[in-house]
Amino acid sequence: MSEAVIKYLHDNRDTLLDKLKDFLAIQSISTSQEHQSDVRKAGEFVADYLTEIGFANVQIEETGGHPLVYAEWLEHEQAPTGLFYGHYDVQPAEPLELWNSDPFQASIREGRLYARGASDDKGQVLMHLAVFEAYMKTEGQLPVNMKVCIEGEEEIGSANLLPYLEANREAYQADFAVISDSGMVSAGQPTMLYGLKGFTGLEVTLHGPNRDVHSGLYGGAVKNPAAALSQLLAKMKNEHEQVTVPGFYDDCEELADHERKLMNAAPSEDYAASLGVVETVPEAGYTVNEHLMARPTLEVNGMYSGYQGEGIKTIIPSEATAKLTCRLVPGQDPQTIQDAIVSFIEEETPKGVRAEIKRESLSAKAYKVDPDLPLIQKAATSLTDAFGKETVFVRLGGSIPVVEWIDSLWTMPVILLGFGTPDDNLHAPNESLLLDHFDKGMRVLADFYKKCAQ
Amino acid sequence: MSEAVIKYLHDNRDTLLDKLKDFLAIQSISTSQEHQSDVRKAGEFVADYLTEIGFANVQIEETGGHPLVYAEWLEHEQAPTGLFYGHYDVQPAEPLELWNSDPFQASIREGRLYARGASDDKGQVLMHLAVFEAYMKTEGQLPVNMKVCIEGEEEIGSANLLPYLEANREAYQADFAVISDSGMVSAGQPTMLYGLKGFTGLEVTLHGPNRDVHSGLYGGAVKNPAAALSQLLAKMKNEHEQVTVPGFYDDCEELADHERKLMNAAPSEDYAASLGVVETVPEAGYTVNEHLMARPTLEVNGMYSGYQGEGIKTIIPSEATAKLTCRLVPGQDPQTIQDAIVSFIEEETPKGVRAEIKRESLSAKAYKVDPDLPLIQKAATSLTDAFGKETVFVRLGGSIPVVEWIDSLWTMPVILLGFGTPDDNLHAPNESLLLDHFDKGMRVLADFYKKCAQ
Repeated sequence: MSEAVIKYLHDNRDTLLDKLKDFLAIQSISTSQEHQSDVRKAGEFVADYLTEIGFANVQIEETGGHPLVYAEWLEHEQAPTGLFYGHYDVQPAEPLELWNSDPFQASIREGRLYARGASDDKGQVLMHLAVFEAYMKTEGQLPVNMKVCIEGEEEIGSANLLPYLEANREAYQADFAVISDSGMVSAGQPTMLYGLKGFTGLEVTLHGPNRDVHSGLYGGAVKNPAAALSQLLAKMKNEHEQVTVPGFYDDCEELADHERKLMNAAPSEDYAASLGVVETVPEAGYTVNEHLMARPTLEVNGMYSGYQGEGIKTIIPSEATAKLTCRLVPGQDPQTIQDAIVSFIEEETPKGVRAEIKRESLSAKAYKVDPDLPLIQKAATSLTDAFGKETVFVRLGGSIPVVEWIDSLWTMPVILLGFGTPDDNLHAPNESLLLDHFDKGMRVLADFYKKCAQ
Repeated sequence: MSEAVIKYLHDNRDTLLDKLKDFLAIQSISTSQEHQSDVRKAGEFVADYLTEIGFANVQIEETGGHPLVYAEWLEHEQAPTGLFYGHYDVQPAEPLELWNSDPFQASIREGRLYARGASDDKGQVLMHLAVFEAYMKTEGQLPVNMKVCIEGEEEIGSANLLPYLEANREAYQADFAVISDSGMVSAGQPTMLYGLKGFTGLEVTLHGPNRDVHSGLYGGAVKNPAAALSQLLAKMKNEHEQVTVPGFYDDCEELADHERKLMNAAPSEDYAASLGVVETVPEAGYTVNEHLMARPTLEVNGMYSGYQGEGIKTIIPSEATAKLTCRLVPGQDPQTIQDAIVSFIEEETPKGVRAEIKRESLSAKAYKVDPDLPLIQKAATSLTDAFGKETVFVRLGGSIPVVEWIDSLWTMPVILLGFGTPDDNLHAPNESLLLDHFDKGMRVLADFYKKCAQ
């Protein structure tokens, strides 16, 4: 690691924080009609900064939605090329009354910087740009070639990103990608995230009588759709928390002993303290960490039927609905799993009701990179060195669609270097970034980019 | 049957209909604060009419809520004494825009009289009073001694009736009771209703994490309360539609062959035509009619958990709730059954969630009168004669609490002579009374009261 770079980041810390505060002050709420021009303004802020740093070919690319910023620095003839992805749009700040300070006037309290976007993702984007700046100012070059892609639609589903990347496949070709849009398992615990789950879902409605009917006059003749739905859902999992939909586990990648060790070495959340849940329920044969990180799940996200008001209403409901989503692991194909659940529902719907299924069109495959890959090991070493603590290796039950897109378009490894913490209040009031992670994270990035060149 | 009485009813039909229209014009909506004085006005209307007919001791009794009208005619020394119960309050008329005519200005179309309360219960109350009037005008006396109890709180649960009856047990002592607050299985089909189901219920909420959590980050560790609720509910019934709660059927009165014959002789509804339900699901070993009329049921009336909006929200819900009610048959004690379900829930709640139970305080025992009882047979003969068709004997899955109260306070048989039809739109817009049933019903009552004297 270049001492000069570290010194530059240290000496310029206040300027960098001010830069970040300016970035955070732009209300780039991508979902808001009212803030359309602010979103573009944040894109322009990023483009200007990249130009200032010394990037070439800085472009504000039109996508049909909010623009995306492209830039490149490709001066090395031999070095590998990295692709950095981030996003400059943010979630709405509402409910405003729950913020302790103005969400768009960043404020520092007890070691945290509070603002909408502080952690997700403006703060983490700025850490990369600051490291690029430091290298250019001190060494006159970046350690590796870099392409930068910073979009403005992540918080609204990145609807225009995949078609754009497909159309610009050549331009974005690189040797590896880096994304900092995630977090560590806890404050101060360096974390190497090397896998994400995929995703599929559907909604099922069981139709019974064509209107709610009197439970006294029809109970015993007409099948109760709420009871039928319970029976159907209950059949989808057994008492060992195993999904009983035929074929569900068929294509799951086996969990290697080596990975099991990594997962079980990661700290476990105290669910009783954080959620009031005394008993955990992992799939039989797996620990909680293993299930969370590397086993597929099928969850009921919502369920409703009949009367929900105070007291009683003695009806047999006309229908009952459940919203289901699965988290998938490497090997599982979202379409195949969705098909399997649809077949199961068609097969197992109790008699007397009729099933209507709405397939969810959003889906994602799981992503996993080999934890022994040299680049991953380099990132882990940078993390361990900067935080002074052994890095844990984890996979995450969540899904980040762009990771799968990059993986499938170019099959380059995606290095997920997230510096958030579980207390960052992403998407919620009082979002913040731990300043210690801001500082150490930049050291990690400076070191990692340097190592990438070796 | 007295020919003079029949002639009187026939000759005075228009006057009686006008009387009914006046009664229906009073907006005696018991649930409405705004119509408090209208409710009393309807009580006074009833009291005035009873006085006019020649009843003695006509009282408007204060109950703490809406008043109740008592009257008596006890001139016979030897004849039995009947107790007639009815109610003069009505449901709200909303939504008003769905009515084809003013709900409080009765209007006749295609053989039906349309107005709120036409069938439930002002129309049927007036039929009794008209028959009493006819007897007094033609024979100068009623065929039997009569006590009359017409309340104003039936549509809000008769909360003050039971304490009032308990406090006035002596005054209401009689040999039999007659109630016309129900209906026939279809228009023109004379129906002897000789049993009602009882009722108990509860609400169960399964609590998981203390807030909705991310299904990716917690799926596999934390039990899903919606899935847990499905599993719990699914265990309460088997695939033969038998309730599997231990003890549920223990005290059920056996269904005699004789009764089975009666029930199966009653016409069955065409559920495909009326409700779009192709397949019926009676309990194994019983026909649909038998299950509807004489087997207990356990129904989910409402169920809710998590996200109910458009699209997906990938959460594990914090909790899941189901509202359950049972319809009970003779022999079953509501408290015992509620206890059995509570024990079942406590026993069978899946691990990882905590059950919270709200017991429903309303309950009722089932009511049944021996179909071979002479008074029942007399009523059936009156029905058959007036309608020109063999009377069917049915029991009903619904509950009428006052029937059980009368039965348990005095153990007198309650003769349920209802003249409504399934198309009367009770509690709904365009409530109506079939005028053919109004006319024939009065003949039935005239004949039945006469037969009671014999």
